[in-house]
Amino acid sequence: MKTSSYHYKTLKDSPSDAELISHKLMLRSSMIKLNASGIYTWLPLGLRSLKKVENIVRRNMEEAGAQEILMPMVQPSDLWEESKRLSEYGPELLRFEDRNDRSFVLGPTHEEIITDIARKTLNSPKDLPANYYQIQTKFRDEIRPRFGVMRSREFLMKDAYSFDINEKGMKESYDLMRDAYQKIFNEIGFDYRIVSADSGAIGGSASEEFHVLADSGEDKIIFSDDELFASNLELFGEKSDQEIIDRLHEKDGKKYSIKRGIEVGHIFQLGDKYSKSLSLSIQTKEGNINPLMGCYGIGISRIIAASIEQNYDQDGIIFPRSIAPFEAIIIIIGEDKNLLNEAESLQNDLTKKGIDSIIDDRNESPGKKFKDADLTGIPFQLIISEKNHKENLLELKVRSEGTSFKDNKKNILAKLKP
Amino acid sequence: MKTSSYHYKTLKDSPSDAELISHKLMLRSSMIKLNASGIYTWLPLGLRSLKKVENIVRRNMEEAGAQEILMPMVQPSDLWEESKRLSEYGPELLRFEDRNDRSFVLGPTHEEIITDIARKTLNSPKDLPANYYQIQTKFRDEIRPRFGVMRSREFLMKDAYSFDINEKGMKESYDLMRDAYQKIFNEIGFDYRIVSADSGAIGGSASEEFHVLADSGEDKIIFSDDELFASNLELFGEKSDQEIIDRLHEKDGKKYSIKRGIEVGHIFQLGDKYSKSLSLSIQTKEGNINPLMGCYGIGISRIIAASIEQNYDQDGIIFPRSIAPFEAIIIIIGEDKNLLNEAESLQNDLTKKGIDSIIDDRNESPGKKFKDADLTGIPFQLIISEKNHKENLLELKVRSEGTSFKDNKKNILAKLKP
Repeated sequence: MKTSSYHYKTLKDSPSDAELISHKLMLRSSMIKLNASGIYTWLPLGLRSLKKVENIVRRNMEEAGAQEILMPMVQPSDLWEESKRLSEYGPELLRFEDRNDRSFVLGPTHEEIITDIARKTLNSPKDLPANYYQIQTKFRDEIRPRFGVMRSREFLMKDAYSFDINEKGMKESYDLMRDAYQKIFNEIGFDYRIVSADSGAIGGSASEEFHVLADSGEDKIIFSDDELFASNLELFGEKSDQEIIDRLHEKDGKKYSIKRGIEVGHIFQLGDKYSKSLSLSIQTKEGNINPLMGCYGIGISRIIAASIEQNYDQDGIIFPRSIAPFEAIIIIIGEDKNLLNEAESLQNDLTKKGIDSIIDDRNESPGKKFKDADLTGIPFQLIISEKNHKENLLELKVRSEGTSFKDNKKNILAKLKP
Repeated sequence: MKTSSYHYKTLKDSPSDAELISHKLMLRSSMIKLNASGIYTWLPLGLRSLKKVENIVRRNMEEAGAQEILMPMVQPSDLWEESKRLSEYGPELLRFEDRNDRSFVLGPTHEEIITDIARKTLNSPKDLPANYYQIQTKFRDEIRPRFGVMRSREFLMKDAYSFDINEKGMKESYDLMRDAYQKIFNEIGFDYRIVSADSGAIGGSASEEFHVLADSGEDKIIFSDDELFASNLELFGEKSDQEIIDRLHEKDGKKYSIKRGIEVGHIFQLGDKYSKSLSLSIQTKEGNINPLMGCYGIGISRIIAASIEQNYDQDGIIFPRSIAPFEAIIIIIGEDKNLLNEAESLQNDLTKKGIDSIIDDRNESPGKKFKDADLTGIPFQLIISEKNHKENLLELKVRSEGTSFKDNKKNILAKLKP
């Protein structure tokens, strides 16, 4: 891959209505482009990061025993009537009629669809436990879409749904997903907290959210200094922050603090809410039972923005290696044909090590090339210049450390772990 | 992977309204499940095949220099007004208002969106040629959805869009895609024809369709015996088949025949239709020009059905290896624990060779297991029984040949090329 034939375009400025740093940097590095309010196209650089997130999520879902499926985005309203959510869900639920005046909704979530599938396919206790997930486009008709892909209307989500024969099973499935989520968010390199949460429009008995700590977060979370207690502040109603901290402190003497968080995951124990209302039942020796469900969401699109909120400096994004669009960029400084050959040979070496890279072979000034590399946040910058070339040296700049040093190719490659 | 913990469920019958063999077999093998008229969920087995098709398409697009992006499914009507298609496109275009009464459509195709992106990002001749593709959910509000995923309302498509500075460039981009399509359909193992076609609602000057030959095809295609001429019959208007054959024969003396085909791909030279109407222009030395576009579609979902129409027998599907949900199924006959160990060891060997497999470890009769394996069309059946186990033998049945033979594991593995 070379920048000369790749959509590698940076902008000096971002639109004035972009408030969040992640929104600004994603626009400036051309990861995304706006088509309509809250509706974006993911451009090549952005989509590469998105796919890396998808793959981390997919691998961990499979390892936890969840099976991938693909459910429709367009859902018949009948199913939402059965669950009673057609009336309960707010105006975020986009409703429309097809050409035959049948009512549909554009899926903001898929509890109804999966329960419809389950009642048609799961019919024996042998079929449980079962856990299905998908990575699919969702639509939520936000009244005020903003913050780029952080609060867009169309977005990608991973949603998983578990089915169990009893409460013990449901809790085991829930814990499996909870563990998988921790692995996923660790792999992505997040500083995050798991907090008790409100079950809201999804329903059910218990739920927890995964919050990435960031000053720009829309939610406030409160936790004790020993971190044994953590909760979304919305569970405490209308009281002031200090009041809540004081009240909790009085109870157990612990210190509490409040931080802002970006919700990137939410897991629920749903119980029989959907299996009952949509009549999913399974015949057991003890009679017919409604399987107990759990549901588990991850905001795939939002993860990119959340990661940037935690990883940037004045020059741009500092992507963790696991979700960077490329792990390395090979920057050519100079016009000698040998430099391009050296770059291609280096790219081959990197590919062999399993490191994906792009060569910046554009006819641009060194300054512009360095600035662009810093802005797009690619972890390793490998600089090939005429001077270095003559001395058989290569320069490596590690974006997250800001440091750079020269050595021969062999030693530089040895430093880059696959 | 084991069938005991996988959604591997077969049905004896398919609903009476399923007419096509592919529809019946996909339902019976639980590759898909209906949620509403023309709207399906892809279950684990079906999605595995779908992902294999996606990967073949993706790899060939990348090799042809196309860059992957992800465009929104929900599209502002404004853009469709600019292209004039809001009025020209029929009722297949689903239209709706959001909560703020702004008009949107659910994307059946993405010419407007990509041209909107292009006018915001491509601004110099250096930016051309460019080719962007996506694999994304589409919606077409068919009046009479039928034939399963062959003519569903929500479906997956690969759509690519090229931008060139002049006609020569446009044709080169077109030919690149045409070549890539041939590679893709060869890899999928189709018997297909490339035929001249009508440009229809998409517009433009020239277009060709890729048709998989099948008696159940909805289109009729006509071609000469030397195959230098091939066309969709709809280009000839209302005349009878024989009349058309006779008229062509009179002209050049060649023999012509008519067959039925399933359209799996369609490529267009669009010219400046969209770049003009949506004001995508690029400044060149000779003044401002509207880049010339091409667009290129592949019906990802439909490919699975088309493949089945060409590959089945009375026992079920006969998937080509490239898009089979699994390449091999290891069938355990007997309850001895050693058999499961042998199966797992065999699965490891296969994985090492890059062959994906599933172990049928269900507590079912041998007959049921064989029938299910035949139905789901997995290319290689590897049978582990107590008798074979004692004699250190393994049985291999090749689904497409119906033949089976026994040998030791080493020799059997040697026969399975990676």
